[in-house]
Amino acid sequence: MAVWKGRERETMPHNIAILGASGYTGAELVRLVATHPSMRIAALGADRRAGVAISEVFPHLRHLDLQVMARIGEIDFSGIDLCFCALPHATSQSVVRDLPATVKVVDLSADFRLRDPDAYRAWYGRPHEAAELQGEAVYGLTEFYRDRIRAARLVAGTGCNAAAGQFALRPLVEAGVVDLDRILIDLKVGASGAGRTAKDHLLLSELSENVKGYSLGGSHRHLGEFDQELSGIAGRPVRIMFSPYLVPATRGILLSAYLRGEPEAIHRCLREAYAGEAFVVVLPYGGTPAMKDVRGSNFVHVGVVGDRVGGQATVVVALDNLVKGSSGQALQNANLMLGEEETSGLMSAPLYP
Amino acid sequence: MAVWKGRERETMPHNIAILGASGYTGAELVRLVATHPSMRIAALGADRRAGVAISEVFPHLRHLDLQVMARIGEIDFSGIDLCFCALPHATSQSVVRDLPATVKVVDLSADFRLRDPDAYRAWYGRPHEAAELQGEAVYGLTEFYRDRIRAARLVAGTGCNAAAGQFALRPLVEAGVVDLDRILIDLKVGASGAGRTAKDHLLLSELSENVKGYSLGGSHRHLGEFDQELSGIAGRPVRIMFSPYLVPATRGILLSAYLRGEPEAIHRCLREAYAGEAFVVVLPYGGTPAMKDVRGSNFVHVGVVGDRVGGQATVVVALDNLVKGSSGQALQNANLMLGEEETSGLMSAPLYP
Amino acid sequence: MAVWKGRERETMPHNIAILGASGYTGAELVRLVATHPSMRIAALGADRRAGVAISEVFPHLRHLDLQVMARIGEIDFSGIDLCFCALPHATSQSVVRDLPATVKVVDLSADFRLRDPDAYRAWYGRPHEAAELQGEAVYGLTEFYRDRIRAARLVAGTGCNAAAGQFALRPLVEAGVVDLDRILIDLKVGASGAGRTAKDHLLLSELSENVKGYSLGGSHRHLGEFDQELSGIAGRPVRIMFSPYLVPATRGILLSAYLRGEPEAIHRCLREAYAGEAFVVVLPYGGTPAMKDVRGSNFVHVGVVGDRVGGQATVVVALDNLVKGSSGQALQNANLMLGEEETSGLMSAPLYP
Amino acid sequence: MAVWKGRERETMPHNIAILGASGYTGAELVRLVATHPSMRIAALGADRRAGVAISEVFPHLRHLDLQVMARIGEIDFSGIDLCFCALPHATSQSVVRDLPATVKVVDLSADFRLRDPDAYRAWYGRPHEAAELQGEAVYGLTEFYRDRIRAARLVAGTGCNAAAGQFALRPLVEAGVVDLDRILIDLKVGASGAGRTAKDHLLLSELSENVKGYSLGGSHRHLGEFDQELSGIAGRPVRIMFSPYLVPATRGILLSAYLRGEPEAIHRCLREAYAGEAFVVVLPYGGTPAMKDVRGSNFVHVGVVGDRVGGQATVVVALDNLVKGSSGQALQNANLMLGEEETSGLMSAPLYP
Repeated sequence: MAVWKGRERETMPHNIAILGASGYTGAELVRLVATHPSMRIAALGADRRAGVAISEVFPHLRHLDLQVMARIGEIDFSGIDLCFCALPHATSQSVVRDLPATVKVVDLSADFRLRDPDAYRAWYGRPHEAAELQGEAVYGLTEFYRDRIRAARLVAGTGCNAAAGQFALRPLVEAGVVDLDRILIDLKVGASGAGRTAKDHLLLSELSENVKGYSLGGSHRHLGEFDQELSGIAGRPVRIMFSPYLVPATRGILLSAYLRGEPEAIHRCLREAYAGEAFVVVLPYGGTPAMKDVRGSNFVHVGVVGDRVGGQATVVVALDNLVKGSSGQALQNANLMLGEEETSGLMSAPLYP
Repeated sequence: MAVWKGRERETMPHNIAILGASGYTGAELVRLVATHPSMRIAALGADRRAGVAISEVFPHLRHLDLQVMARIGEIDFSGIDLCFCALPHATSQSVVRDLPATVKVVDLSADFRLRDPDAYRAWYGRPHEAAELQGEAVYGLTEFYRDRIRAARLVAGTGCNAAAGQFALRPLVEAGVVDLDRILIDLKVGASGAGRTAKDHLLLSELSENVKGYSLGGSHRHLGEFDQELSGIAGRPVRIMFSPYLVPATRGILLSAYLRGEPEAIHRCLREAYAGEAFVVVLPYGGTPAMKDVRGSNFVHVGVVGDRVGGQATVVVALDNLVKGSSGQALQNANLMLGEEETSGLMSAPLYP
Repeated sequence: MAVWKGRERETMPHNIAILGASGYTGAELVRLVATHPSMRIAALGADRRAGVAISEVFPHLRHLDLQVMARIGEIDFSGIDLCFCALPHATSQSVVRDLPATVKVVDLSADFRLRDPDAYRAWYGRPHEAAELQGEAVYGLTEFYRDRIRAARLVAGTGCNAAAGQFALRPLVEAGVVDLDRILIDLKVGASGAGRTAKDHLLLSELSENVKGYSLGGSHRHLGEFDQELSGIAGRPVRIMFSPYLVPATRGILLSAYLRGEPEAIHRCLREAYAGEAFVVVLPYGGTPAMKDVRGSNFVHVGVVGDRVGGQATVVVALDNLVKGSSGQALQNANLMLGEEETSGLMSAPLYP
Repeated sequence: MAVWKGRERETMPHNIAILGASGYTGAELVRLVATHPSMRIAALGADRRAGVAISEVFPHLRHLDLQVMARIGEIDFSGIDLCFCALPHATSQSVVRDLPATVKVVDLSADFRLRDPDAYRAWYGRPHEAAELQGEAVYGLTEFYRDRIRAARLVAGTGCNAAAGQFALRPLVEAGVVDLDRILIDLKVGASGAGRTAKDHLLLSELSENVKGYSLGGSHRHLGEFDQELSGIAGRPVRIMFSPYLVPATRGILLSAYLRGEPEAIHRCLREAYAGEAFVVVLPYGGTPAMKDVRGSNFVHVGVVGDRVGGQATVVVALDNLVKGSSGQALQNANLMLGEEETSGLMSAPLYP
């Protein structure tokens, strides 16, 4: 809920805390919550920038009259209805563990995505500090966990790449229309997926006019999510191939899943799976979306095209990594957890061009 | 008003027509109106793309259930409350002339910005086809023409560059705190300012990693607006210097006005002028905005910095040419003309990064 | 050979004509030939821009003292040693047919790449106008056709995407170390690959911050070259899957070939194949190049990485579509045809960042 | 001199050391020297990356067979003819001081640009550690210090912005055709001007689709050079106004000097001043260059346009900050210091598009 002059409210808004407000997903939450009709930002947490106005860090929020960012330990959570944790991986688990049990939590880090402590340790190279919560956390891919999310206290936001891939694959694995042993994903992602960390390879001078692979060969951590989720659906181990590439864009994911299966059956399966979804648009057969088609929005566009090689299909998925891939998804989940309409505050059209 | 499932309405929405829907400012109007709480898109006009779904032309609007675009001559305007004309310059004047007098009009072209037919002919190289309306049209810079816009039937949207410049200059010329004979503007603008026309110099291959001046030396047509408006305020001819540059960005204007005058007085003057404005943010003295600070939003950020050379100040203005510079401004005006709250549907925060 | 003051020559340079000088590959040839130690630009042809100085069309060539562009029909080819044809597809065939037999020709269009008239008709949708030359033309992938190119009168430059793919695949198909029925290529290419044609989807406003597939599903014309060349090597039909994507960059190709085969054997095979090549660099096993690593140069970088899924490898190839993918390759071929050192005028390092 | 196979040499090349090889200007020197016909890279220094191959840091140099980077203190300078110091500001002065007197030096840092120790202290906030060399160093703007550079042992490369500005201003100040008290410069520069330092505001996510001023109001350090040089020419203090802006590009400067003076006289003055220069191109009156016109090259393009406001002119200068603004300029100076032709190794045309 924004704080501009003349704004009026009929009902009591939900009090929202956003931890990690000085990062990209945190700022994106502020952007979205600021105009949400039934939420109100009650606290902003950012340990390293405590005492600083968020507009110092994110000048695009200058028009909002917001709290100064505070140390997380100094936030009074007694009146908070729901807390978004947009903290770095590994930092989140102990923070979430220590929050009052009365506060609902949507965690955007990787900390609660994997239910199995061993899988967590394998992919993240360290033991989990709140293993007791790993089982409780509901995986936050709203379209597939809607009922459990409504009842959850702790929801784990998905990886942005993992979200994009699952929009392509889940209905197909469920329906058994693709060869599970030959799923290959090539994904193009903008730089904001790596956060606001000042690293050499994320400099405009390095990434402009460039494309580069990273974590090729099956080493990307989001594979942990793919393994857990797809194997769960299939009822047997599924190990996909996954190759992500950084492209010279800020936001956005364009994912291509190359699949063995009948292209039109694949298209039909996806169209039916998403028929009732407000945020997922399946294109007519043969059409594929572009990355910018969903920029800045919570929408997902999905297209299917057959190949000249028989029995081979390409499913292309576009989503905005900072919205549907993280903060928008988080707000969609929060809407459910707070009894609001799922689409509330999320129907803004993409920004184009 | 969007058309998604479950949307509910308490009151009758205003019926809106958007002409020129296949251009960038037209599509931007669709984006904004689609989530406006009290407007409803009733007709989309686009002569050259008549019969085509807007999502064919603008895939980012795929999620909306909208009318097929129609020939303007075939639109039934009887139930239309307000019509946005986002047509090319020179095309608009005859279309507007022929609209029913009951329809309120916000015209986004250059056709009704200049009140003086001779000035129009001088800057646009042709006589006006609806000269009788030139005097009636209200200049659409909302913050300065608010009362007249409320009562107007025809409002002329401003040039995007002219809007940016006037946010810097109008209060200063009014207050007499700058030397009127030494106003120099250097403006950086993204490619969308030139529309969606496929011209060589707007290709990514040409403009990427490039910056180039255009209409340098005082030949840019928006100078007609500067001359009309600033001279009107000053009560004597004012002729500024104005140099625009294309930069490798899609949206946005960053304007620097280099001025003779006392920097802190200039800052104070601007801060006071915009104290009550919802969309104009004046930064603390010494701070200046960046182009992306307002991306995708209706906000204007203004900063002032003094120079080591005494009595010299730089005023920097950032706005989004497609929102505050055209379609957002148009909606702001439409709100006033329809008796809605001025900020309605326009408070979304900028998209960053 | 450039034409600046003080330049001295010991031997008679080769006289070079460049047809299609007003396009990107034509301008790139001018750039490269201008500093070639034993070539001299003797004629520039461009029918639509006849009578215009090339610096009017390409201001980056302002420092060169070059001929005005002429109608091709008005060029005197009597003293010309070699002619580069950088004309649009389908235009080139009749022009080349009509050149004097004494002039060596490097054609950069698609017109002479396919030896089989039926294949040409199938991929390009029209009969060939110089079918008698189709058989004579040597396919211009220098590293694999070196000896035949040396003796050729007519060399057909390869498709830029086809070149990139063949650098990955030829040695592997030859050595039989990959499954020929499961070759899948995902390619990212900058906008200049589509030339300087002003099309909507190549505008900076459209392509900036965007990625979009085109000719997905096996319809890209470069597949004609893949089919011809790979089947020729394998001695049986090979039909690969090939999916290209436009990325927001001007120059460059980054190609990923996803292959069934032993990754280290694949790496060894490529390292050995390119051991003596001046322009092809094979990275140590596990490393992969980025698109910008070769920007503006005639170099090709090749890397191989294995996948967590056993028996699966990814070969990544980077090259500059306008240099190694067309004009640099053309000059490399011209060097051989004129008895010059193959690397002459081509050893400039990539431009980075 | 490159180190590829088959390269032949008639004469003994000059032995070149490059210190600071792991930065952008260092890598740019490697790129340029690698194909210089009479130079040979004999040592690469980079304290923090000592022991590392330069291709690890700059993969675009993979094709070169170069020395591993060494600690500067461990380099044997006995056979070195000329040393380029591309070290950070303030680091360079003590390194240069300690080099053997037999080694010629081109320093690319800011350390020796200001002859006056007090001016150095004022602009750089610290005393100079090699004040005795400050007077000896020759200011490296080749076109204006050619004779002194030929005889110099130590040449101080200019600031890239300062170089661009002086190409516009020096002949005009010398000729007295502009009002010295009303010189205003607005400069657009790509991100590489700030080096390879991983700072937040240089991230692609931050700078893409953005433009932002920095060091506005007369606080940019290159003003020390402007003050020194222009005052020296004018014979009285000259204090210009200078406002630089970061644009979303990697390389390049586009500078606009807004001047009081007769536009055609200004154009004539510049055209005459640069008539014999190999690297400076003055456009016909009324034309202005774009930033990308000189990308990757040592050329400078200069244009002049008059304003509708009488007696007011705009001079637009384009140069590549990493070439003519630093490493190319450095090589041009080194050519003179070593008795080579000034243009040697520097005539490559710009890379466009």
